Order: sequence, then structure tokens, then C-alpha cells
Amino acid sequence: MLKLSRALRSYSRHQLLEVVSSTKVEVAGFSTATNNYSAKGYNNNYNSSDRIFAPYSVYKGKAAFSLSPCLPTFTKLDSGALVVERRGSIMMSFMHAIGEHKYDWEKRQRFALSATEVGSLIAIGPQDSCEFFHDPSMKSSNAGQVRKNLSIKPHSNGYFVSLNVVNIVLNTKDSFSVPVTTAEFAVMKTACSFALPHIMGWDRLTNQQMQSNGTVGFQSKTNPQILDLEWDK
Amino acid sequence: MLKLSRALRSYSRHQLLEVVSSTKVEVAGFSTATNNYSAKGYNNNYNSSDRIFAPYSVYKGKAAFSLSPCLPTFTKLDSGALVVERRGSIMMSFMHAIGEHKYDWEKRQRFALSATEVGSLIAIGPQDSCEFFHDPSMKSSNAGQVRKNLSIKPHSNGYFVSLNVVNIVLNTKDSFSVPVTTAEFAVMKTACSFALPHIMGWDRLTNQQMQSNGTVGFQSKTNPQILDLEWDK
Amino acid sequence: MLKLSRALRSYSRHQLLEVVSSTKVEVAGFSTATNNYSAKGYNNNYNSSDRIFAPYSVYKGKAAFSLSPCLPTFTKLDSGALVVERRGSIMMSFMHAIGEHKYDWEKRQRFALSATEVGSLIAIGPQDSCEFFHDPSMKSSNAGQVRKNLSIKPHSNGYFVSLNVVNIVLNTKDSFSVPVTTAEFAVMKTACSFALPHIMGWDRLTNQQMQSNGTVGFQSKTNPQILDLEWDK
Amino acid sequence: MLKLSRALRSYSRHQLLEVVSSTKVEVAGFSTATNNYSAKGYNNNYNSSDRIFAPYSVYKGKAAFSLSPCLPTFTKLDSGALVVERRGSIMMSFMHAIGEHKYDWEKRQRFALSATEVGSLIAIGPQDSCEFFHDPSMKSSNAGQVRKNLSIKPHSNGYFVSLNVVNIVLNTKDSFSVPVTTAEFAVMKTACSFALPHIMGWDRLTNQQMQSNGTVGFQSKTNPQILDLEWDK
Repeated sequence: MLKLSRALRSYSRHQLLEVVSSTKVEVAGFSTATNNYSAKGYNNNYNSSDRIFAPYSVYKGKAAFSLSPCLPTFTKLDSGALVVERRGSIMMSFMHAIGEHKYDWEKRQRFALSATEVGSLIAIGPQDSCEFFHDPSMKSSNAGQVRKNLSIKPHSNGYFVSLNVVNIVLNTKDSFSVPVTTAEFAVMKTACSFALPHIMGWDRLTNQQMQSNGTVGFQSKTNPQILDLEWDK
Repeated sequence: MLKLSRALRSYSRHQLLEVVSSTKVEVAGFSTATNNYSAKGYNNNYNSSDRIFAPYSVYKGKAAFSLSPCLPTFTKLDSGALVVERRGSIMMSFMHAIGEHKYDWEKRQRFALSATEVGSLIAIGPQDSCEFFHDPSMKSSNAGQVRKNLSIKPHSNGYFVSLNVVNIVLNTKDSFSVPVTTAEFAVMKTACSFALPHIMGWDRLTNQQMQSNGTVGFQSKTNPQILDLEWDK
Repeated sequence: MLKLSRALRSYSRHQLLEVVSSTKVEVAGFSTATNNYSAKGYNNNYNSSDRIFAPYSVYKGKAAFSLSPCLPTFTKLDSGALVVERRGSIMMSFMHAIGEHKYDWEKRQRFALSATEVGSLIAIGPQDSCEFFHDPSMKSSNAGQVRKNLSIKPHSNGYFVSLNVVNIVLNTKDSFSVPVTTAEFAVMKTACSFALPHIMGWDRLTNQQMQSNGTVGFQSKTNPQILDLEWDK
Repeated sequence: MLKLSRALRSYSRHQLLEVVSSTKVEVAGFSTATNNYSAKGYNNNYNSSDRIFAPYSVYKGKAAFSLSPCLPTFTKLDSGALVVERRGSIMMSFMHAIGEHKYDWEKRQRFALSATEVGSLIAIGPQDSCEFFHDPSMKSSNAGQVRKNLSIKPHSNGYFVSLNVVNIVLNTKDSFSVPVTTAEFAVMKTACSFALPHIMGWDRLTNQQMQSNGTVGFQSKTNPQILDLEWDK
């Protein structure tokens, strides 16, 4: 039991370590976006909240992983409509332990859960398991060179979350396995259920009126009704 | 398993295809509203976020469908109160496959799930099934000419989501059946549970203070209490 | 099945009828608040979104009821802190049918579900039932004169939601019983789960930063930590 | 049953008592933050909504407790990125009854539930129990002097929520035990599920675009895709 509270304590230091590393790490993704942003003259759209880090992390003796939602991006069509360009995901990052409360971020491996893969995680029962395969080079000449395999398997008191990465060219294999308690998995399910509509972009649809500074959109009584639309065939 | 990741990959192209088609398609509904908007002089209320497209789509070999929430519209009474004019819904659009990763949007069929029908979808158990019937011309002289029938039926590894549209006048019958995995159905349930309060308009009620730019509404201690209201008989 | 779609259709008319009545009805509560508002010089705080009506209604042959969330009100202490003054609730309004698709709003009866009573509704299982008693004059000289009793009882295909109001002085008894389908009850559960944190005022706590126009609040590294607070004894 | 409604009534008075006390109590945490705020010149960021009190309280004969979410704080890195500095929690405050509807706030004891401990509470089944240990002086020279132990144990009609605080130095032991009904526990589960993503800071990630005043962020087609990021190895 004391182990639990000790873990809780040590989290705060991990948290900071982890997050500072994240900023280096994420830059590849996030601030490139920012640069294109400015490049395309949307600099005034940019605000610092575009780089907030609040991963949920599970630290265990041999390895650790963290979860963080990645929002979809939208692109503008000539019609002025905004459409999802890049789908959102829940990014998982796995690290090996390299000492007490130390984890090797430089050699971490990532796995981006799609909306449907998040659905599997949310729907998984106490005795169920699920497994996902990603091939980075899918449909390119390099197809099959790197294989990633994420599995979630039940154990006595929760699940094992494991990632295997095989690189045929470099002839390397990297494996992570993190035991997750029922409580930690409940956090993952609740947080992913919360994030799912956001990575799908549905929060944009449902918050349209709130975005227009609280102006309430209403329409003329003569509008075709959605039901008529459906039925206008 | 590789099939899964391949599907994931190909989604991004579908997504774009689908969405671009959507913009044409939706215009019937959305930009008519926009026109009335301007016509009624609310042009300044209009913002581009009024046309965001982020459907959740399930693509299978013979057919596909997508889900997208449609928010309710409000109308202003002489009293200044805003009341729901047109109820929201979850719009389902079904398409036939016309080639590899190609779906016929021109001949798609739509079915608008009401709040209560969304309730059925959310409440459905692993072995349950549900079925809805819509008649576009309900209560008009054309009643019974077109019949739409949406069914959700369990199979070994998820559900079959099927739509049948019968047109007695044109003597046509159009059928779609899409197998949905447990994971895809979990996404549908989670996304529809998220969207339900929004299509009911309850997010408006609960976000009133947030809409008034963060001003916190408070009232005099002498206010009649809701309990007194209930009991003032 | 056709009955279902017919009901759906007729909803839209009911909706309007109901809501227009509501505006008359609610004025007792809402615009009194508004008057005090102006009286206390907060008129500029007032915005029309303070009177939005989007009840969820279940209409059946003999009676109907609707659900609508009522937000808590806050009062300002000398310290400047805002505290909940009047707790929120889910207001239920019951009406008798007085004709086809006609319901008697003048003689409706109301029952305000507290957060804990909403908890009962959310937690109720397929075979469970629950019952609540309210006494409007509780602890006054009139205690016991009027008794309200709301019950939710399972039946083959959902629940019976019933309200009894007994007035000993007037020697009257008013009873409503509305059969609710599993689908309609799923909407009630989902909508009430969504509304619960809002009627508790927890959305205020969690949306504080969003209210401050997106400015992200952060603090000095020398702040006492919450854990220290907890443990500072 | 009448006892229930009486309790409901008396809540409103308790609520006020409790909350006014809270303002004294919380000041230690909250307005210190505010002072640093000004000290660091972020005074203009400060708004009164930073001190809103809306705890959920369960009052019973011998003791009571209340739940209130505490949001995480963020700190700015040189890179401009915002990272979680102090994790959020659900703060539980326990009080002994000192008279009818009177509770001793001065001698209350607090226990801050971490995200993972909230996960335990959410995941707990009807017959399950869970227990948490906190040591305020963990890893300091005072380690082991004060022990806090929170337990949730099932009973016929809900759970017992108990807190024990042992101080070896002062040779004191303080115990609280509050019976919680199924309905009250359902409120706790629903409210904690709502609050969890907020105490994790995930609402910040998912509300980034909404914070930028409704401006929709989009990026150039030439952006590295998240999938490529994952796969760029």
C-alpha cells in the first residue's frame, strides 16, 4: 500500500521530466505546424495554448507509457467549408526504464490510436484482449520493413499493455510491456471516451454556436426541414 | 490484421473524397439556411464554422455509411424567448460501393435518427436488435409512397446496419447492409452519447453562462426558489 | 412501427405548443429573476440566452411529461467568492391529455429532481424501481398538507413514470402515469448524466480558465502544493 | 421517505454554512495562488470565477464529507510550452457532526484523490471495495508520522466511505465513517467521471481551438502527418 503512495509522490517528478522531454519531442510535429502557420500568414491565429502538454502516464518497473490526445486538423475548401484533413488520434508513447524513476525518452516508440482503435479500447471487457498492427510504410516500396504491434491482454488485476516494433532492415526488435491496474485502465477508458468526440472533430460541430460568441443561430420558418431533406426523394 | 491497417490508411483518401462530396450534398440544407440568414439580415451572425464536416464513416466492401450530428435550430418568440424550432438529429448517409474505395454519393440514401432513435442505438445490448420506420410523406396525400426502414441486427462480431428504401410509385427498392465491428459500434455509441444532449439543445441550456462571455449570473436572495415554484400550488 | 414514425412527426407540433406554453409558465421563475437582475443593476449581464427552452418530452395517450435542466444560481460573498445559492435540478412537468396530441399545461404538476434523485434515476437497473416524496410545506405550519410522490417502476418494455399529488386541504388527488420505452429512458439517462455536473455547478469549476477568455492560468513554482495542503496538519 | 425530503430541505442551509466555511478554508490554497498571480504581474488574468464553490456533500448523522474538483496548474517553459506543474485532484473533506445539521469544519480532515484513485472510485463494482493510503511526509525525515487511510466498502444499500487519520507524534487518531446510498454514489461516480479529464488537464488540450475565440486552426497540406511521425523510424 505504501508502494502506491510512494509512486504517487514520485509521479510529480516524473511528470516534469517527462513533459520537458515531450516539448523537445513534440516539436517535430507541433511547431512545424506552427511554422507553416506563420508561413501561410495565419500567425495571428496562433496562440500559446496550441502547445499544452498534459499526458496521462503509467510508470512501472521495466517500462512506462503515456497517452495524449492529438486533435484533427481542418482544411478550407474553395466553397469555404472546413473539412477534416488529418484525423485526430490518441498518441501512445512507450519508454524503457533506465534507472529508478528514469525512462529513456530518446528511444521511445510511438503508436497513434485511431478513433476505431480507441473504440476497441473503450469496449474491451474484463477478460477480453485486443491487438492492432500498424505498418508505417504501408503501400510504399518499403511496405513491411517496419511492423508495430500493440496488444492489450487481461491479467489477474488489470491488463498488460504491450508494444512490439520489428524492423526487418535494421534487423532490430523493440518490446515494451506495462502492467496496468484496473484503476489505471478505468482512467484510460474514461479519458479516451472523453477525448474520442474531440479527435473525431465532433466537438467542432456541436460547439458551432458557442464559437460564434454566443450568438444563437436561428432560421426562417420556411426552411426545408431536415426530415424533408431526408425524405425529399 | 494487415487488412485493418490498410483500411485505416485508405480512410484518409476516402475521408477527403467523402467530405468534398458532402459539401456539394449538404449545400441543399446548410446554405439554404445561410441564404435565409442573409435574407433576414443576420448575415453578420454567420461564420464559416457553420459549415464544418467531420462525419464518422464505416467503409466496407459492398457499402458504406457515415454519421454526422445535425444541431437543432431555434426561433425567437415575441416574448424574446428562444425555442427549439427544428429538432436536431444524427444524419446517416448510406452509399453503394462502385469500385475499390469508391462509393456512389450521388445515389446515397439518408436517414435522420431522432433523439429517441439515438436512445435505442445507445441502449442496444450485444444480442439486441432494433428497427425504425420513416415515411417521408407521413400524413400527406403521398403517405405510404416511400418507406424507409433502418435496422441494427447482431452478428458474431458486431452488428449489421441495414437501410431499405422502397418507392411504390417508381417501383424501386434500394438496399444497403454494412457489417459493423464491436469497435466501430463502440465509437458510434460513444459519439452518439456525446452528441445526444447537443441535438436535444441541452448544451444551450447548460452553457448559458459561458455564452455570456464568462459573466457569472447571480440573483437576489429574495428570488422565489425553484422548490417554491414546484410547490406553489 | 408506423405508430412510432407518426408520433415522431406529431412531435414537432407538440414541441411548439408545449414550448410556447412553457414561456408563459416559466416566466414566473425566469423573468422574476430577470427583474431582480435589473433591479440590482446587473442588466448588462442579462442576455437573451437566459431564456432558452429545449425540454425533452415523452407524449403518450393519457398523459405526458417533459424534463428540463434548471441551473444553480450563485451569490457573491464579501470575500468576492461565488457560492451556490440555489441548487440546480431537473424539472419534470406532467400534463393530462385533453384530446389527440393536446395536453393541459394549465393544470400541469411539477416535480424538481435534486442531484441525488437524478443519481437514483441514472443508477436504476432494468428491474429496479425508485420513489421520491416531496412536501412543499416541509417544516412550515402547512407541513403535510400537500404530498408529491414520484415513482419509476419497471414494465415489460421499459418503465412507468408516475406522479401523485395529494392535497389534504382541498381534498384533491391528481395522478399521472406515463409508460416510457427503453429507448426513451436511455435518452433520459444520457441527458440527465450530461446535465448532472451542470446542475451541481461543477461545470463552473472546471470551465474557469475557459471563462477567462482562453487565458491559461499558471502559478509560481513556490505555491503550496495541494498535497501539502492536504497534509499540512 | 419523509426523512429524505427533510434532508433535501435542510441541505440548502447546510450548503450555505459549508460553503461560507469553505471560503475561509480554501483561501489558504486559492488566494495564495492569486497573490503570486499579481506578484508575477498576471493580475489582469485573474477573474472572480477563480473562486467558485460548488462542492457535492453527503450529510449523515455522525459525519459528513464533500467532494470538490481541484484543477491542475500549468507552468510555462522557456520554449513557451505550457506543462502541468501541479496535478489536479478531487478534494474530499470530512467533518464530524457536532449537533443537528451542524458539522465541525475547523477540525475537518482532507484527502486529495489523484486521477488514478478517481479511476478506482469510478471502476468500483457493487460488491467491491477499495482503499488508499497517503503519507503527508513521504520521503521526508517525518515519513510515517501521519498516516491517512481512505476506504470505500460495500453495505446492503450502498457503501461506507471512511477516513482514518493517525498521528504517531501527537498520538491522536481521527475516524470518520459516512454511509452513502446507491443514488449518492451514482452522483459521485458521474460527477467524478465528468471531472476526471479536467483534473488531468485534457480539457485544455481538447479546447485549444475554442480558446482561440472560435478561430479554426488549419495547416498546410505539406505538414508531416501524425501517422508519418509515428512511423518515421
